[in-house]
Amino acid sequence: MARDPRYDILFEPIKIGPVTAKNRFYQVPHCNGMGHPNPRAVAGMRGMKAEGGWAVICTEECEIHPTSDISPYKEARLWDDHDIPALAMMCEAVHEHGALAGCELTHHGPSCANHYSREMPIGPSHQPINGYDPMQARAMDREDIRNYRRWHREAAVRAERAGFDVIYVYAGHDIAMPMHFLQRRRNNRTDEYGGSLQNRVRLFRELIEETKDAVGHRCAVVVRYATDELIGPEGLTLEESQDIVGMLAELPDLWDVNVSSWYNDSTTSRFKPEGNQEPFIAFVKKMTSKPVVGVGRFTSPDTMVSQIRRGVLDMIGAARPSIADPFLPKKIEEGRPDDIRECIGCNICVSGDFTMSHFRCTQNPTMGEEWRKGWHPEIVPARKSEDEVLVVGAGPAGLECARTLGQRGYRVHLAEASDELGGRVAREAKLPSLSEWGRVRDYRTYQLGKLANVEIYRGSRLDPAHILEMGASRVVLATGAEWRRDGVGRMHGFAVPGFQGINVFTPDDIMAGKAVQGPVIVYDDDHYYMGGVIAEKLRRQGHDVAIVTPADLVSSWTQKTLESTHIQRRLLELGIELLVKQDVVAFKGDHVDLACVFTGRVTQRACASLVTVTARLPNDALHQKLMANPGALLEAGIKSVTVIGDALAPGTIAAAVYQGHRFGRELDEPAMGEVAFKREIPNLAV
Amino acid sequence: MARDPRYDILFEPIKIGPVTAKNRFYQVPHCNGMGHPNPRAVAGMRGMKAEGGWAVICTEECEIHPTSDISPYKEARLWDDHDIPALAMMCEAVHEHGALAGCELTHHGPSCANHYSREMPIGPSHQPINGYDPMQARAMDREDIRNYRRWHREAAVRAERAGFDVIYVYAGHDIAMPMHFLQRRRNNRTDEYGGSLQNRVRLFRELIEETKDAVGHRCAVVVRYATDELIGPEGLTLEESQDIVGMLAELPDLWDVNVSSWYNDSTTSRFKPEGNQEPFIAFVKKMTSKPVVGVGRFTSPDTMVSQIRRGVLDMIGAARPSIADPFLPKKIEEGRPDDIRECIGCNICVSGDFTMSHFRCTQNPTMGEEWRKGWHPEIVPARKSEDEVLVVGAGPAGLECARTLGQRGYRVHLAEASDELGGRVAREAKLPSLSEWGRVRDYRTYQLGKLANVEIYRGSRLDPAHILEMGASRVVLATGAEWRRDGVGRMHGFAVPGFQGINVFTPDDIMAGKAVQGPVIVYDDDHYYMGGVIAEKLRRQGHDVAIVTPADLVSSWTQKTLESTHIQRRLLELGIELLVKQDVVAFKGDHVDLACVFTGRVTQRACASLVTVTARLPNDALHQKLMANPGALLEAGIKSVTVIGDALAPGTIAAAVYQGHRFGRELDEPAMGEVAFKREIPNLAV
Repeated sequence: MARDPRYDILFEPIKIGPVTAKNRFYQVPHCNGMGHPNPRAVAGMRGMKAEGGWAVICTEECEIHPTSDISPYKEARLWDDHDIPALAMMCEAVHEHGALAGCELTHHGPSCANHYSREMPIGPSHQPINGYDPMQARAMDREDIRNYRRWHREAAVRAERAGFDVIYVYAGHDIAMPMHFLQRRRNNRTDEYGGSLQNRVRLFRELIEETKDAVGHRCAVVVRYATDELIGPEGLTLEESQDIVGMLAELPDLWDVNVSSWYNDSTTSRFKPEGNQEPFIAFVKKMTSKPVVGVGRFTSPDTMVSQIRRGVLDMIGAARPSIADPFLPKKIEEGRPDDIRECIGCNICVSGDFTMSHFRCTQNPTMGEEWRKGWHPEIVPARKSEDEVLVVGAGPAGLECARTLGQRGYRVHLAEASDELGGRVAREAKLPSLSEWGRVRDYRTYQLGKLANVEIYRGSRLDPAHILEMGASRVVLATGAEWRRDGVGRMHGFAVPGFQGINVFTPDDIMAGKAVQGPVIVYDDDHYYMGGVIAEKLRRQGHDVAIVTPADLVSSWTQKTLESTHIQRRLLELGIELLVKQDVVAFKGDHVDLACVFTGRVTQRACASLVTVTARLPNDALHQKLMANPGALLEAGIKSVTVIGDALAPGTIAAAVYQGHRFGRELDEPAMGEVAFKREIPNLAV
Repeated sequence: MARDPRYDILFEPIKIGPVTAKNRFYQVPHCNGMGHPNPRAVAGMRGMKAEGGWAVICTEECEIHPTSDISPYKEARLWDDHDIPALAMMCEAVHEHGALAGCELTHHGPSCANHYSREMPIGPSHQPINGYDPMQARAMDREDIRNYRRWHREAAVRAERAGFDVIYVYAGHDIAMPMHFLQRRRNNRTDEYGGSLQNRVRLFRELIEETKDAVGHRCAVVVRYATDELIGPEGLTLEESQDIVGMLAELPDLWDVNVSSWYNDSTTSRFKPEGNQEPFIAFVKKMTSKPVVGVGRFTSPDTMVSQIRRGVLDMIGAARPSIADPFLPKKIEEGRPDDIRECIGCNICVSGDFTMSHFRCTQNPTMGEEWRKGWHPEIVPARKSEDEVLVVGAGPAGLECARTLGQRGYRVHLAEASDELGGRVAREAKLPSLSEWGRVRDYRTYQLGKLANVEIYRGSRLDPAHILEMGASRVVLATGAEWRRDGVGRMHGFAVPGFQGINVFTPDDIMAGKAVQGPVIVYDDDHYYMGGVIAEKLRRQGHDVAIVTPADLVSSWTQKTLESTHIQRRLLELGIELLVKQDVVAFKGDHVDLACVFTGRVTQRACASLVTVTARLPNDALHQKLMANPGALLEAGIKSVTVIGDALAPGTIAAAVYQGHRFGRELDEPAMGEVAFKREIPNLAV
């Protein structure tokens, strides 16, 4: 199809210093949990985005020196020439598709612990490093600053030699040396690098100038700068940033601007909508003639066009939308924007950085698998047999499985017991602030609608007899899971007294609209979003609500999705009491017994209702029944019965989508053995 | 010197199945933060212990399959044949010195998240995985159990091919599949692998039998088993363990026994003394004729002999003592047990596992550096010049620097301002339960006493004039640090109102014995041990004490030293109130203003005194004065002035010792460049 002319503006080339981006789509630097130990996985992922139409593809933070060792986090690295080949591989993959490769040179200053290199951290002043590691950075003396500038210059040259077209000076996110020099609370120097704004800007300016001097003849030298730390007068504020941008306005070849720190920048859809950074970055374009790029989890081409038309941005920056759909630009270009797999803003990708493992995406199960599994987000192998597949259950796993099989050309029957597609996603998207999660269903429903070889049966609860009769030779069970009622979970291996009585509810009950009486205790032994969201829902209904959790924080695991602080704050501001490090050891009708997780000391807390958010049990009755009669399966011509998604092992939506995709992609394909992917293994021969 | 005949028994060979250990020193499996991504570093470290006289040297946990992927933790790996060469390298390094190499085959079952492999976790029952990752393990069916047994057998064969002599079946620490099958709270199976003890033991027994069948002709097949989880009747108890050991008594070739989980096993000296596991493991030897190995942070040869004579153990297991001194056996053998660098039980080594980085040791700065820096714990290069070195300050950095330089043959002057050696270690060892930390001083003081070329000056506070007069051509400043009084630290970039007034104290004041009036607030923005220890000390003096911290836990970073739970429990049981997620924003004489870190809501809390534990400032006045007059330095023939330890950047004792050692070892040696060590870099050519 032809591109909608409204979107032509998105495909105008943009000059960035000595190089030209072929369009306005700009993948800003983002981490990925793979980094320098996994160079081929990184190159595969970045190359895929280039193939998908992004004009500029950047690295994650790229450490320039062993004093900037942010291990165990896995980012890029250019400590010396040994690191060049890995990044050259990424540049080649990016260039192959006509995109520009950008390198975010980074010195973390006092924001890294140097766990691996064991060098002493350095910074503008004597100060503890970020986080709680028991180390302090030492105040750099003049020689240190000269050295640091030299390291930055040398790293820029290495980046240029690796093939990068765009070189960053990074001053963002409260994790970069130039930003730390800008921050009054971190910079108490009395020399020419401290005190006045002019002085605090000096290092940032020098780095830009010196990088231009070193590589500016061939590479664009750009900055990434956070305009507001959103922590009030102790931090960098919009006011001060206007002065800073004013002082440096024409110096870099491009301004990549956002807010700080990371949890304010990459905020989930639960807390911030598309385009939410505009009030903090719109001023930049008014102060410079250089192109400005910014982010806002943009997935709508209309919003993108509006950003440009209204003079907010020149280029559409994206991290998460490019992860959810590496082919986003191409889909707009080809006149099929409805095919975009829109980011749902859940930040499961971010958890890859915190778990230091190949990042994943709820919407895009191929993310991180480009090299090691050879998965392409848009292309699947053609079917290898005439098998018909029955998929039972149209939740995230079933939808994705049916979609993938359908794309491959298999004849697919997708049977959903309820009248609504989406399974848990449909239910959870109705919880407070989670509506964008419905995109998991919407994307797949739309794609399935285009596949003539996939038949969808709503309101079809199948029993074994139906399945045996249907004639499909492959059966996939994606029947989901239910929240346990007995309290068994992380804290409890055995049923908890009183949990299976009246006035005790599970998230399934609350999502189904069951009425509860306050005051309510929400017992969260799950530690992801559900306990907090349920508490929020009940509180918004007017109940007196407290959350009890054995963890140190409510929704503890959301520290890995950058949501924890937002969650605690919202719940507290709603008037929900947070009782942490307490276990619920019994429900007695009008109160719970709470036990301190450290001392075991038991106290009582009055409540009328209890909501238990503990663990889930797969809905595996259908599977059990089918497997009980192998003869009948054989007779019906059923070659395999496979359980996927929460019905196999309850987990994240991302895990369910991944499993659905994996089954769909791997059916009839040759098996790879016990280790079903390629990996980097240290080569002892070198 | 000749070996003390009392210790002869420690050097008797011990037969373990088909192999024989040359003595009774047994390095039990322990992690190291290096693992499979750093095979040469691991081989260097394990080989060094073999050189030091240990008869058996084991790996860390060795994952047998991609469903047992405990990333991001870096352990050993034998997923397939590609992993053999790395471990073969370790075996060679161990064999070179006549030791046996042991491999701890591990499947983590529901105790790993498979972040990297993205396989679904498996376990005895449907259950959330250990930790808070939002995943559940699925209940294994019979085919899964057959597969799992096959994987274990195949991994045993791979281990044998790699060259291992001792192969483990691991059932310990609440992180291993056979243990999870034993645990009633995790195993609710109704088949032959669940229910009765006989059934729950079945898998463990099968694994031992099948491993013996696969490799028992050449390798010893041993078990590691935790006899008590110390969590009461929900866990494995000593009573049940007696039955279990009875059922399997003669099956393995050796019993390696301890308690569970890890934080109860590798407990710091703050909480448990040497040999504390005896009540939990002594029964094993009474039930089996096979050798029994156990741990207890043994550093005293007399205690070791007693363990054997009294029939508690056959072999002296060690992890931490072998890290602090890889040459512990050799030093006993050579009749110089006083040279042993005794483990202080601080668990900074353990933090290497949690920070996924080369582990380190407070006592042994060469740990983890054997391969990448070529550091040997006992051998240093001879001096390369006639330079005399003045070391100012006899804290951990200064002592180690002087010791290393002295060992190299340099003439050294060590000047200490006070009358006592040890610096912060001398002060901190007097805090509650930290007395073993004094070993950092004791080891070095003893070694320095043997070096005729090192002169120690106590009570010698030097000023620049003294230093210029002394005639040393190298000056090293190890003048330590002081706790800040202004509140500046992690939460505060600017001085906090009221902190510099009366009735406000720092840890230095408390250690110096200054009297405080209760009630006392301890404000902990440091997050390592100090805040909690100071609170404990004041409480034991009878004061009413509360700790306030912006973190989620008191002494939050001690989660990485396995102490956090012990600390919270002890403080609570002492009656200290723990106020978390609160910041102290002002001290107003009779109360503090507390601000909620999420909402900023301010409350008041009465107190008579405030102890601020925030950050430290280097004692750098002497350095500043010296550097202010470069001409005088030149004239005095001083070639270099170097600051080390807390005087450079306040950090851990381990970091100070490391820096002292590094200076001592690297003086006059060729520089290695910006990256001062060898590293594993993915080889893109393969």
